[in-house]
Amino acid sequence: MQAATPERPDFAAIRAAQDRIRPFIHRTPVLTSSAINEMTGANVFFKCENLQKVGAFKFRGACNAVFSLGDEEAARGVVTHSSGNHAAALALAAKKRGIPAYIVMPRTAPAIKQIAVEGYGGRVTLCEPTQAAREAAAAELVQSTGANLVHPYDDVRVIAGQGTAALEFLDEVPDLDAILTPVGGGGLLSGTAIAAKALRPAIRVIGCEPALADDAAQSLREGRIVPARPPVTIADGLLTSLGKITFPIVRDLVDTIALAEETEIVSALRIILERMKIVIEPSSAVPLAVLLSRPLGLTGRQVGIILTGGNLDVSKIVPMPPSNQATR
Amino acid sequence: MQAATPERPDFAAIRAAQDRIRPFIHRTPVLTSSAINEMTGANVFFKCENLQKVGAFKFRGACNAVFSLGDEEAARGVVTHSSGNHAAALALAAKKRGIPAYIVMPRTAPAIKQIAVEGYGGRVTLCEPTQAAREAAAAELVQSTGANLVHPYDDVRVIAGQGTAALEFLDEVPDLDAILTPVGGGGLLSGTAIAAKALRPAIRVIGCEPALADDAAQSLREGRIVPARPPVTIADGLLTSLGKITFPIVRDLVDTIALAEETEIVSALRIILERMKIVIEPSSAVPLAVLLSRPLGLTGRQVGIILTGGNLDVSKIVPMPPSNQATR
Repeated sequence: MQAATPERPDFAAIRAAQDRIRPFIHRTPVLTSSAINEMTGANVFFKCENLQKVGAFKFRGACNAVFSLGDEEAARGVVTHSSGNHAAALALAAKKRGIPAYIVMPRTAPAIKQIAVEGYGGRVTLCEPTQAAREAAAAELVQSTGANLVHPYDDVRVIAGQGTAALEFLDEVPDLDAILTPVGGGGLLSGTAIAAKALRPAIRVIGCEPALADDAAQSLREGRIVPARPPVTIADGLLTSLGKITFPIVRDLVDTIALAEETEIVSALRIILERMKIVIEPSSAVPLAVLLSRPLGLTGRQVGIILTGGNLDVSKIVPMPPSNQATR
Repeated sequence: MQAATPERPDFAAIRAAQDRIRPFIHRTPVLTSSAINEMTGANVFFKCENLQKVGAFKFRGACNAVFSLGDEEAARGVVTHSSGNHAAALALAAKKRGIPAYIVMPRTAPAIKQIAVEGYGGRVTLCEPTQAAREAAAAELVQSTGANLVHPYDDVRVIAGQGTAALEFLDEVPDLDAILTPVGGGGLLSGTAIAAKALRPAIRVIGCEPALADDAAQSLREGRIVPARPPVTIADGLLTSLGKITFPIVRDLVDTIALAEETEIVSALRIILERMKIVIEPSSAVPLAVLLSRPLGLTGRQVGIILTGGNLDVSKIVPMPPSNQATR
């Protein structure tokens, strides 16, 4: 007996998401760098989701989920568990619809992330820092409030929303030979693959992950969801495992999962900050790290990279005023 | 007896510069941030010259100077003395015309800046780190090579080139009530004032400088060029004094010089990195620092800020890979 095919968004769902979220999101710019073209030997286009609202593509999926709800259901609000960009994204999307967002965060999450979510009007519930505690706290909120659970990636509405970045990208650069995205839980990669393969069947879709968090590559090799390993990579947005919905999409539509070492990720991050003058978080540097370090057969090709987010901790960045200021 | 009026570029010179340099420069984007609008109470538009080639508006003026030369004169090359963005800008402009660029740099300049200039094909001459030594070395090169001296700011071709940023800015946002730029030597501020007042006479042009380097404000107060003080500000692109050409333009056309304290500059820098996700150098943060801290009567107005450059030392920015990487 065959298991039922998990629900999966199709191209029409992504088009519908695009129309639904258009009034709320930024259409982010596509940037290029002649220095990076020289380094890679390819024509590289960067879709700048670090310039998206809340600083990450996650706002697309969160918006699509929130604005997909009927009025009555929406009024009860939305729930998620996340300490990252999805939490802020869902809080802002809910604010734009004027409904409550209940956000479960581990009590170990940096205070600054909690403040950001509350700044967007999210109602934060702290829990123990385990997956089980998160899920239990979220389930309890669903019970007590009747709010709608919006999973960070294993949700068809979220995947469809994330796919809209690729729609815009191919609208602006229709002749891309390949699209590279980071892969964590696989929401962006799934949405990208569905959109890109529908518009341009010959395009290569390449998921990029840190070698220290290569659970997606292992999952594809073993034909089952291999859980993420303990967090060691600098690319801390990519620690999650593929989900029940994203795994089969990635398995069926993605051409390759390619890996990058930590030093390669740091080097790529630095190149993007120095050469492109834009702020990205480490996870966003993984595709360029792959392109610079792995033979992918993309020399001379049109290569698209989705820069997923810009929420770098800049407290380390900003130089201090000279110490002689106080003597003035 | 009255002194002869120093040469001064007019609006037509800026229009001509725009046509001349168009094939070589980026038309940089104008970005906005709803968070910054909330903080300032104004509608703020940022002209992103940090995304210009060589990472600074300086490429506009350098290009205009280089491409203004007749073929015979150009063949002998160009000379300047600079340890900053103008050096890289002139080297790249000369490379694009296929002529030599002789760049005098103080031997104390960071090695990375010398490498950048050489990367653009510039021929570097090191000198003692004094203004007199720089000027002498440059004059010697003019003598020995017949090359054309392109001063970093006190040059009508350079000022006309810098004015093209304001032309693009007002083309994109025609109803600006004010334009704020940093002021160091006054090249950008002069070009901006000429362009903006010609297109929109009622616009306010505000030069912004660090309180620790307030020589432009003093110069206007005293009616003469007050030399820059010893370098103490974090905004190290703004240490130069106004020049013989820029001083009278600033005096006649600029409405105000406003000052920012060092902590205000650092805070504004951080806001731009965190909220706009773009990399700027400290000098570029001075106008936002002013707007956030000084009463300028711009509440509810359309305010333009030119972000002048993105050459921040990012070696301090980039996080290191986790230390347990080596144990893998």
